[in-house]
Amino acid sequence: MALIVQKYGGTSVGSVERIQAVAEKVAKLHKNGTQVVVVVSAMSGETNRLLKLATQINDRPSRREADVLVSTGEQVTIALLSMALHKLGVDAISFTGGQVKILTDNAHAKARILDIDESIIVEKLNNNHVVVVAGFQGVDENGNITTLGRGGSDTSAVALAAALKADECQIYTDVDGVYTTDPRVVPEARRMEHITFEEMLEMASSGSKVLQIRAVEFAGKYNVPLRVLSSFEEGEGTLISLEEDNMEDALISGIAFTKDEAQLTIRGIPDEPGIAHKILGPIAAANIEVDMIVQNISQEGHANFTFTVSRNDLEAADEILSKVQQQLGALEVISNSNIAKVSLVGVGMRSHAGIASKMFTALGNEGINILMISTSEIKISVVIEEKYLELAVRTLHHAFDLADDAES
Amino acid sequence: MALIVQKYGGTSVGSVERIQAVAEKVAKLHKNGTQVVVVVSAMSGETNRLLKLATQINDRPSRREADVLVSTGEQVTIALLSMALHKLGVDAISFTGGQVKILTDNAHAKARILDIDESIIVEKLNNNHVVVVAGFQGVDENGNITTLGRGGSDTSAVALAAALKADECQIYTDVDGVYTTDPRVVPEARRMEHITFEEMLEMASSGSKVLQIRAVEFAGKYNVPLRVLSSFEEGEGTLISLEEDNMEDALISGIAFTKDEAQLTIRGIPDEPGIAHKILGPIAAANIEVDMIVQNISQEGHANFTFTVSRNDLEAADEILSKVQQQLGALEVISNSNIAKVSLVGVGMRSHAGIASKMFTALGNEGINILMISTSEIKISVVIEEKYLELAVRTLHHAFDLADDAES
Repeated sequence: MALIVQKYGGTSVGSVERIQAVAEKVAKLHKNGTQVVVVVSAMSGETNRLLKLATQINDRPSRREADVLVSTGEQVTIALLSMALHKLGVDAISFTGGQVKILTDNAHAKARILDIDESIIVEKLNNNHVVVVAGFQGVDENGNITTLGRGGSDTSAVALAAALKADECQIYTDVDGVYTTDPRVVPEARRMEHITFEEMLEMASSGSKVLQIRAVEFAGKYNVPLRVLSSFEEGEGTLISLEEDNMEDALISGIAFTKDEAQLTIRGIPDEPGIAHKILGPIAAANIEVDMIVQNISQEGHANFTFTVSRNDLEAADEILSKVQQQLGALEVISNSNIAKVSLVGVGMRSHAGIASKMFTALGNEGINILMISTSEIKISVVIEEKYLELAVRTLHHAFDLADDAES
Repeated sequence: MALIVQKYGGTSVGSVERIQAVAEKVAKLHKNGTQVVVVVSAMSGETNRLLKLATQINDRPSRREADVLVSTGEQVTIALLSMALHKLGVDAISFTGGQVKILTDNAHAKARILDIDESIIVEKLNNNHVVVVAGFQGVDENGNITTLGRGGSDTSAVALAAALKADECQIYTDVDGVYTTDPRVVPEARRMEHITFEEMLEMASSGSKVLQIRAVEFAGKYNVPLRVLSSFEEGEGTLISLEEDNMEDALISGIAFTKDEAQLTIRGIPDEPGIAHKILGPIAAANIEVDMIVQNISQEGHANFTFTVSRNDLEAADEILSKVQQQLGALEVISNSNIAKVSLVGVGMRSHAGIASKMFTALGNEGINILMISTSEIKISVVIEEKYLELAVRTLHHAFDLADDAES
């Protein structure tokens, strides 16, 4: 008997009517003889409503208590969805993260799943129940309620699918799959039928917001086939799984992009060993994550050092860097938030040279200057001026024929 | 070091501002060196909001899932109150019923508390924490979430006070104590400083809505001094405890009344042994509770049998009784919902005769006819026509000098 884990996000369960629609989808699958575990988020808006109450009371609410508070959101949804399933004649039973139990570390608001006790779920599934589990939440070893952070319901679903050795983990969302790039930027962007975990991971870390990075990592680690589908439309969605011989023979699978980064340059530093650590050490100590890094030799034994951080961290990073500049006797610090990062992703890249040069040529032909470059085995990312972002994405989508199913 | 359990109901925590006010009360007590456990209800309106969502989805929601749903209400409050206490510089930590753990039977929506594991609370109290516990909820032995039924937070507080051997359990509510009778009916009604568990129990079961009967029973059983106080005004409230030698030497402590009952009479039944069972057996089988019962001998070996039930049950009881009438060949069934029950309560009654005759005389002088009478060791109840209720209560309050502190 097939076992499917389905996950429905906040928009998909955002009202009584939508919860009823989800129940009908689940009931249909269950009546076809499939064992179903459903993971749900809080109804859309609920988490924000609760956090607003919290901040009215305490501008810096304790993370432990914030987890106690917001975890009620999913608890409401599991109860309501179970009731909706009962109404359709389906035996259903709800479990909170603590009841299942989804054991996490004690990092409140961003906990990591350590273990899941699947025994009660298996018992209920074998007893012909649909099992409805609260996503996003767990308990630490002392029974404190934890949450996995925003979007953590995807991770809950994948972790449950892994623990239960499910045949597939289906993530229902408001888009009908993973696209070659954002259709709002490139209207001819094409839904992919199949991409690999690696590609999805690079897409997600390069700006695609369809799936949470941690959920994809988890799925890859435990080889859980993952499918992204629309809650509101019929369709096959996009399957994310291991690379297979019969996969689409694409050089490039997709183009991801983000405007969430900003660039910092410290000019005229002494070009000596250990200088990178002197610059990035204080940045790391402030818990600021650095993405791309480039060091250029400049004239007279002095170098320029450039890196990118999240735009939210720009101000803090700028302050730190100004102190570093004084210590090192560097010339100046330049910060720039008008940048964007565009990434080509594809496992086909591994065995094909020339992708980078084709990319640079295409952008150059449009007069788009490349500010920074970084590469991985299956990804090439470039930083460009933000104003060229849409043009760059359209240009690359066309240059690599991504709209054309047969060719790509 | 003194240990106090405080309970705040839904109105007392009905808004951000009120939660902050509760936090200030608690913080003040804690800073004076008292160990404090706070039990809270859901913010007023929240339980109804959740149940409305449920009934929109399923007109007969499963009790298990309804408990999962509504128990989120208190969980929100414990988190918010803890955050408010943190803001005031008080170390506070919240626990759900499941975390504490408040073990109940598995009667969802009306569970009974079986045991409380007080170890984690004691540990936190000794660590200078205020402990905030969700009222109204617990878990059964399989970890299913249960609720104690409406008003169950009072019972949670008393049970916690018993488990912790607290010096006092304080129930904060929207009235400032227990009154000799309802001040809306008798403006000169007087707040009592002290009454016994027995008296409070009789008052509660006779219509006084200040405290839940089960909470009073629990407090009496474990001898937990119980105090009813206002959340909104300063004051000593009313202490409910064991009878003591130095107690107010009152004949009558208070007057309770209710319009929640209705009267049923079956006329002309054969006056033979076992007839009461033939009448009340089917009523009990339908889970209808009977309060007062009177059997009068009528003429020619036939009797009349009269009893009272909750008004909500009148229709069902009337139907059952009509069938009984046919089986027994009785004359007719008369139902009457225009009745009220007035009860005098007082431990002083034990040692004083003449209370009943004084009561009947006072009512008779006002032309109020007594339809039924029942007595217990510390209570006399009469059923009268509903239209005389306020007059009867005022008359008795005056006749027994209840407004006069020294005399009563």
